[in-house]
Amino acid sequence: MEADKPTRTEALMEVVRMRIANRSLSPGDRLPSIRDFARDMKASPSTVAEAYARLEAEGVLRARRGAGFYVTGVDLPPMALAEMGEPREQSVDPFWVSRLSLDARASDLMPGCGWLPASWMPNGAIRKGLRAMSRGEAALLTDYGSTRGALELRRLLIGRFAEEGLPATASQLMLTGSGTQAIDLICRLLLRPGDTVLLDDPCYFNFQALLRAHQVRMVSVPFTPDGPDVELFGQIVAAEKPRLYITNSALHNPTGASLSPQTAYRVLSAAAAHGMTIVEDDIFADFEPALSPRLAVLDGLSRVIRIGSFSKILSASIRCGYIAARQDWIDGLTDLQIATSFSGPSPVAVSIITGILTGGSYRRHMDDIRQRLTTAREETASRLASLGLVPWVIPRGGFYLWCRLPEGLTSSDVARRCMQERVILAPGNVFSVTQSAGPFLRFNVAHMADNRIYAALEKAMKA
Amino acid sequence: MEADKPTRTEALMEVVRMRIANRSLSPGDRLPSIRDFARDMKASPSTVAEAYARLEAEGVLRARRGAGFYVTGVDLPPMALAEMGEPREQSVDPFWVSRLSLDARASDLMPGCGWLPASWMPNGAIRKGLRAMSRGEAALLTDYGSTRGALELRRLLIGRFAEEGLPATASQLMLTGSGTQAIDLICRLLLRPGDTVLLDDPCYFNFQALLRAHQVRMVSVPFTPDGPDVELFGQIVAAEKPRLYITNSALHNPTGASLSPQTAYRVLSAAAAHGMTIVEDDIFADFEPALSPRLAVLDGLSRVIRIGSFSKILSASIRCGYIAARQDWIDGLTDLQIATSFSGPSPVAVSIITGILTGGSYRRHMDDIRQRLTTAREETASRLASLGLVPWVIPRGGFYLWCRLPEGLTSSDVARRCMQERVILAPGNVFSVTQSAGPFLRFNVAHMADNRIYAALEKAMKA
Repeated sequence: MEADKPTRTEALMEVVRMRIANRSLSPGDRLPSIRDFARDMKASPSTVAEAYARLEAEGVLRARRGAGFYVTGVDLPPMALAEMGEPREQSVDPFWVSRLSLDARASDLMPGCGWLPASWMPNGAIRKGLRAMSRGEAALLTDYGSTRGALELRRLLIGRFAEEGLPATASQLMLTGSGTQAIDLICRLLLRPGDTVLLDDPCYFNFQALLRAHQVRMVSVPFTPDGPDVELFGQIVAAEKPRLYITNSALHNPTGASLSPQTAYRVLSAAAAHGMTIVEDDIFADFEPALSPRLAVLDGLSRVIRIGSFSKILSASIRCGYIAARQDWIDGLTDLQIATSFSGPSPVAVSIITGILTGGSYRRHMDDIRQRLTTAREETASRLASLGLVPWVIPRGGFYLWCRLPEGLTSSDVARRCMQERVILAPGNVFSVTQSAGPFLRFNVAHMADNRIYAALEKAMKA
Repeated sequence: MEADKPTRTEALMEVVRMRIANRSLSPGDRLPSIRDFARDMKASPSTVAEAYARLEAEGVLRARRGAGFYVTGVDLPPMALAEMGEPREQSVDPFWVSRLSLDARASDLMPGCGWLPASWMPNGAIRKGLRAMSRGEAALLTDYGSTRGALELRRLLIGRFAEEGLPATASQLMLTGSGTQAIDLICRLLLRPGDTVLLDDPCYFNFQALLRAHQVRMVSVPFTPDGPDVELFGQIVAAEKPRLYITNSALHNPTGASLSPQTAYRVLSAAAAHGMTIVEDDIFADFEPALSPRLAVLDGLSRVIRIGSFSKILSASIRCGYIAARQDWIDGLTDLQIATSFSGPSPVAVSIITGILTGGSYRRHMDDIRQRLTTAREETASRLASLGLVPWVIPRGGFYLWCRLPEGLTSSDVARRCMQERVILAPGNVFSVTQSAGPFLRFNVAHMADNRIYAALEKAMKA
């Protein structure tokens, strides 16, 4: 987190912004002349001129020919105000974790968030990729990508799928703007308002947010350490006739559990018996020490659609997801992506990702990350245990730990109290369609090193 | 480009879809009997039966036992999109230009595409931005962005809006993955299947593709060199009660025309009288030599939503769009973007774009582009005139030239023939809801320097 020091120009710009924010300069006011301000601030006139010019480009100031610079009437709220302080943030719904973690201040502690700290990511490889791009072809830097995304990355993914025993062709694979967008496109292709969709309980909170946007009916099946409860799964599929089942087979979010071979077989059989399609979100695959069973592999991309992204392992800032499915579905999904986003992921982003994945250091980087996560998981489990928080299962990989609070405590209360200390937790019911996960919290072991988290938790649990 | 010829069944399905699209068949209407339609279309009854059955499977028609087939209207399933593109590359539909231009070979000539050649874009500034990013903070390179996107770019846009006389606050503005995605989010917030949406005729083809994905009904108003025909506009809005009107006020796609102040006032008044919301797609703003009237400015972001992006002026590979609207709508749109994409545009992309827009060379670059476009527009108009192609209007900026073919020629035929020479044209009817722009072609003057284009056109027009 070594922030660049602001330049002298930026510092002067900030001074002007502050004066406007604290109303010592009001709309219509004339600014000090360049010469006066330079003398007051002990800066060179050219630096002040540059600062004024950039503030003009931003619309904060307006130059009047021969008459200096004036504050425009633009109502610019101070930084912190614009980003924070909305009552929206306190309701514990499927948006609780997203809103709070995405708009967190740099100083917030985020044991509930769904990604690795920036320092754990392959920053060196990303910087190298950006430098390589800065020497790339003009067309790559400025043109739209192809409708299915660059063939090079699709080939690379097909190679990885083949290693797992999942044969696929390039026309069965498309790149998307993100993993979430991949699922969204599939929902647009296959669902109509009023359809029924099956989810795990608990499941990734954003599946619920997404399905609400599609105006479909959600039903859920209890999740066990081996995957969904297979007895109930068969009954629910037969009774509710869901069009789609959305799940993580490996390192399930939020529990970290993975599917057993027997559960995989029975889930797929039930889906086949009732014509149900399955979306298998494989976003945590690279965190597994060894591959666990996958529905997509068992099924061979007939009724199972695989989606994934690189947000958890490479970068969430350089965005790209993918869909592997039956070719006729990919054809439809490609048109839908044109219609709704015009094109898929940024070709620059795709090229950087391809570079990192093909680079020699990626495998080493992931080995290292898995090792660090194992250590962090053990430490976190032991420290949480001393507070009376018990993991529901010890995951074989990934960064989640799904823990039960001591009898009588409710995770949304604990989360609200911790929020007052700027510690952002992920309370159980944001993951639960049936609101039956009240005693649980999801922790991200990569964000659990700071003692203040345990202190805030202890205090909130005692309150 | 080996496209399958549509089967007889598919051709009949398309006839039915067209009749629904041009409203000679409305929701609830009974279709001709199988026997009658077979006779009219010189097809066998079994082929008609098959076409009706497949349209029923798509949800376009509904069979009533013993009483024939009826138009369902509101129930167009998303699958119809995929089916539409069956003979994927040859069917002249709203996807014709997108698919062909996005998946073009490097050697293809693209007079019909909707963006500038890579060599016209500010490549130096982009390369500089990428190098700066390679030294950026780790969090910027790997973390998700905030829910509304980086404040720095939002402030910059607010400053530009203020210069135009459009006051807005940072909480009235959000960044999106692209301009198309911006419109898509708005449709998700404000539309329900079966709603009516008003478009210009002609209009940007992807508005139609997008609205089909939303399963809404499209109506259209003829476009004049001053904007939509105001007399008809008022009548259509009163009669059809559209929920939304989507338009480009300035440098309209495909005609290049811009709104007159009188038209702007009457359009807005009609919208206000009938509670209609307007989406003003301002993607070509920076190509105008001087700002023409904007509905968003006149209205002050009450019922008009402004959207835009940087794909046409900076890069389509470094993707980012934006929405400016009423704050309560922005709140809803922000949640929708979380639900459907998890986060907005890539923070790295946003940072590069901000750097270019605030850099001193951007203004000079756009001055240069506008000058080059003026020259290219004149040259193109004169060369096309010698082939008998006449511009409908000479635009005051931008890269489009909407030209009428000589009497008796149809643009889709000319486009198909040019495609054989790998010259990708944009035939009029892909822009027309009522399929009434058959004699027109849209040209991109920045892609018109190559003599082979004129040779291919001449040959295709003589064939």
